[in-house]
Amino acid sequence: MTLSVTPKLLSVLSGQSFDHPPVWFMRQAGRYLPEYRAVRATAPDFISFCFDPEKAAEVTLQPMRRFPYDAAIVFADILLIPGALGQKVWFEAGEGPKLGELPSLDSMAERASQAGAALSKVGETLTRVRAALEPERALIGFAGAPWTVATYMIEGRSSDRVGARTYAYQNPEALDRLITILVEATVDYLAMQVAAGAQVLKLFESWAEGLSEPQFERLVIQPHIAILKGLRDRGITVPVIGFPRGAGALVETYAEVVPVQGVALDTQISAAMGRRIQKIKPIQGALDPLLLRAGGDQLLRRVDQMIEQWGQGPYIFNLGHGILPDTPIAHVEQVLARVTGK
Amino acid sequence: MTLSVTPKLLSVLSGQSFDHPPVWFMRQAGRYLPEYRAVRATAPDFISFCFDPEKAAEVTLQPMRRFPYDAAIVFADILLIPGALGQKVWFEAGEGPKLGELPSLDSMAERASQAGAALSKVGETLTRVRAALEPERALIGFAGAPWTVATYMIEGRSSDRVGARTYAYQNPEALDRLITILVEATVDYLAMQVAAGAQVLKLFESWAEGLSEPQFERLVIQPHIAILKGLRDRGITVPVIGFPRGAGALVETYAEVVPVQGVALDTQISAAMGRRIQKIKPIQGALDPLLLRAGGDQLLRRVDQMIEQWGQGPYIFNLGHGILPDTPIAHVEQVLARVTGK
Repeated sequence: MTLSVTPKLLSVLSGQSFDHPPVWFMRQAGRYLPEYRAVRATAPDFISFCFDPEKAAEVTLQPMRRFPYDAAIVFADILLIPGALGQKVWFEAGEGPKLGELPSLDSMAERASQAGAALSKVGETLTRVRAALEPERALIGFAGAPWTVATYMIEGRSSDRVGARTYAYQNPEALDRLITILVEATVDYLAMQVAAGAQVLKLFESWAEGLSEPQFERLVIQPHIAILKGLRDRGITVPVIGFPRGAGALVETYAEVVPVQGVALDTQISAAMGRRIQKIKPIQGALDPLLLRAGGDQLLRRVDQMIEQWGQGPYIFNLGHGILPDTPIAHVEQVLARVTGK
Repeated sequence: MTLSVTPKLLSVLSGQSFDHPPVWFMRQAGRYLPEYRAVRATAPDFISFCFDPEKAAEVTLQPMRRFPYDAAIVFADILLIPGALGQKVWFEAGEGPKLGELPSLDSMAERASQAGAALSKVGETLTRVRAALEPERALIGFAGAPWTVATYMIEGRSSDRVGARTYAYQNPEALDRLITILVEATVDYLAMQVAAGAQVLKLFESWAEGLSEPQFERLVIQPHIAILKGLRDRGITVPVIGFPRGAGALVETYAEVVPVQGVALDTQISAAMGRRIQKIKPIQGALDPLLLRAGGDQLLRRVDQMIEQWGQGPYIFNLGHGILPDTPIAHVEQVLARVTGK
């Protein structure tokens, strides 16, 4: 008989709370680590890097060796799905992602149900990481949510999303079809990740910002519900954390109606709203990455405040957005010592 | 005995509600109007344009002639205050504002109490407009709120505010002093506007977005409270509308603790949050300017929905952000007909 260990992160997602909440950081496998930059330098480009299971597993594990994070998140990118649908994606140094012409909806629809197979290298990374990771540490798989991925697919680059939001008003039928395709591809991709070893899934709606309530309902809420349903229909029961970044007041509606097991909060959350959501769902968040970078007494005071305001309920400590590349490692160590009490 | 007429907008700000709410649009004096572009073309630069009372009054009145707006808002800019404090401000075509080196805090502190006098041309515009405007239409004066103005002063241009938010963490004392100077200058500037004919004041916190709760408390809530107190200390009793754009869930805290008479809501508000705020204060907002530009049935459906969800309480119909330059005039006419029922 083997002793089964439940990672703290999973316990929180099933409703438990801890004096010292579990902790991980968005983009914890990243450029603030010299060992990451060293491996990154050996890959010809960013997309190849994501598709190299040996390198991707290595950088996923690097922060786990250095810090007491409670979870690893697979190193990959939210823009792998457009590639799986036939749209060219590449990264230009200092400029972020670039995407080629949007393929026809018909051709993308044909590829949607094979997204998992097309992205099987990410599964290989997950399997490698799971084999190397201690059992008390959870492994997170993820995907960009349909609207966020669609903004890049439509605009062809990082942007203020004005073009995509205008497209949503002017081409509602085409956008709805694209979202439906993305829902199918995302379900297939996430299901593949679970089969490969992911114990938790995170859905990154990085650009919920600025959407009116009807647009949020149509472009965020409904597609997220459809993805959750698609996963359950395949018998997948791992917990899902939804992250509607920039949803503002609408995050409460999100927590009420989307059947995720946890809600990740962005930097601009109030203590009161966090507690209100916590009555419905476990929460994760929401330290300001700029404060983590700045450091000092104000950083540790804020860490204490967040644990005080949310630590009585199910709570996962994290940032409100990804860690910045020029964040001093000493600040990360200080925060983790404070959160873990060690 | 003269018959006194209370503008509908002022009635709403004192708590009344109407079947057809009063309506005005942010940036209603602007580039979507050919007559605006014609006057603008006669001014050598944008700042001179703001400081030319004849031209500024003319463009303020243009939309009032064309549309049944219930209020005029003085044509000016939120970046006039840095100029009054000695910082150079100019606009480059297609690039937005540019600001010169930040003057010393001491030199700005010396100028703060004379901001109204330095910006007296804006007062002349207000007086001209008030003389020409029908008594049932309200005249709004405004200023940029301290944090928003500070972001431009610190960064020297439009930006993602990451530089200013980092400055706020790294130079808290200098920033607090700058904010204090801006509070004093803003009170003096707004008091001058009331003396010149403004019947309502609006405080534009255009960049509340992305602030953590402690930063929001320090950089938005406290300075707004100080401005309201400064105005009351001078015996000024005109209603003030606060607009913490991008405050997300924190807009509720804002409405609870800042003694403004009305709260303007941005595009991303929920019906429920709007109603919650409306129990405390009259609200204004929040049609998506992108939807106004896109037009069609979905536009009129959204207008109906907003009036249905908020029209039972004190409500001013408006956009959630400024009208876009390429908005078809026909769409504005359709919305105004729908809102006014005429």
